[in-house]
Amino acid sequence: MIIDDLKVPYYAVIFSTILTDNISGYLETANKIEVLAKEQPGYLGIESARSEVGITVSYWQNLDAIVAWKNNLEHIEARNLGREKWYKKYQLRICKVEREYGFEK
Amino acid sequence: MIIDDLKVPYYAVIFSTILTDNISGYLETANKIEVLAKEQPGYLGIESARSEVGITVSYWQNLDAIVAWKNNLEHIEARNLGREKWYKKYQLRICKVEREYGFEK
Repeated sequence: MIIDDLKVPYYAVIFSTILTDNISGYLETANKIEVLAKEQPGYLGIESARSEVGITVSYWQNLDAIVAWKNNLEHIEARNLGREKWYKKYQLRICKVEREYGFEK
Repeated sequence: MIIDDLKVPYYAVIFSTILTDNISGYLETANKIEVLAKEQPGYLGIESARSEVGITVSYWQNLDAIVAWKNNLEHIEARNLGREKWYKKYQLRICKVEREYGFEK
């Protein structure tokens, strides 16, 4: 799904990942965490795709919302599991969305 | 590939797309445009993944570099073809990357 109803400025968290060969439990946890993210104050939306690299972009009202989500206990547990088992490498970027353009047929 | 050697602040362009059923010529053009992007002043890197949605994030030194790339003639031609043939929907976001964290096993 593409998120297209947001008004700048707001924030994006770009999470780029490469998985290990041991992904047992990964999808269940990823889905659980996505459901949990949607319940957080300031959550605006999420977009996700995976090829060799996975890219998940979540959108947030402001930096406070991102910090609160970062400090959520279930999110911390999942992140620790991720570093231990599932992620070979990741990069997480916190960005302020300044401009936006859309197209739809 | 995950880009991991950049220093904040810099800019990210998040390009989220849904393709039509008519993707003849799409991959060739997408690859050509990626090669061309890499030659632009201020280009820093690109990450890409596709599932139901495609997400391509390109990284740039500053807004001027993004505007110059937006106005590149071959890029304009490819974008017009894209709107005509390949893209059912897209959303393009220009973001300032403010913070960044990385992990590698």
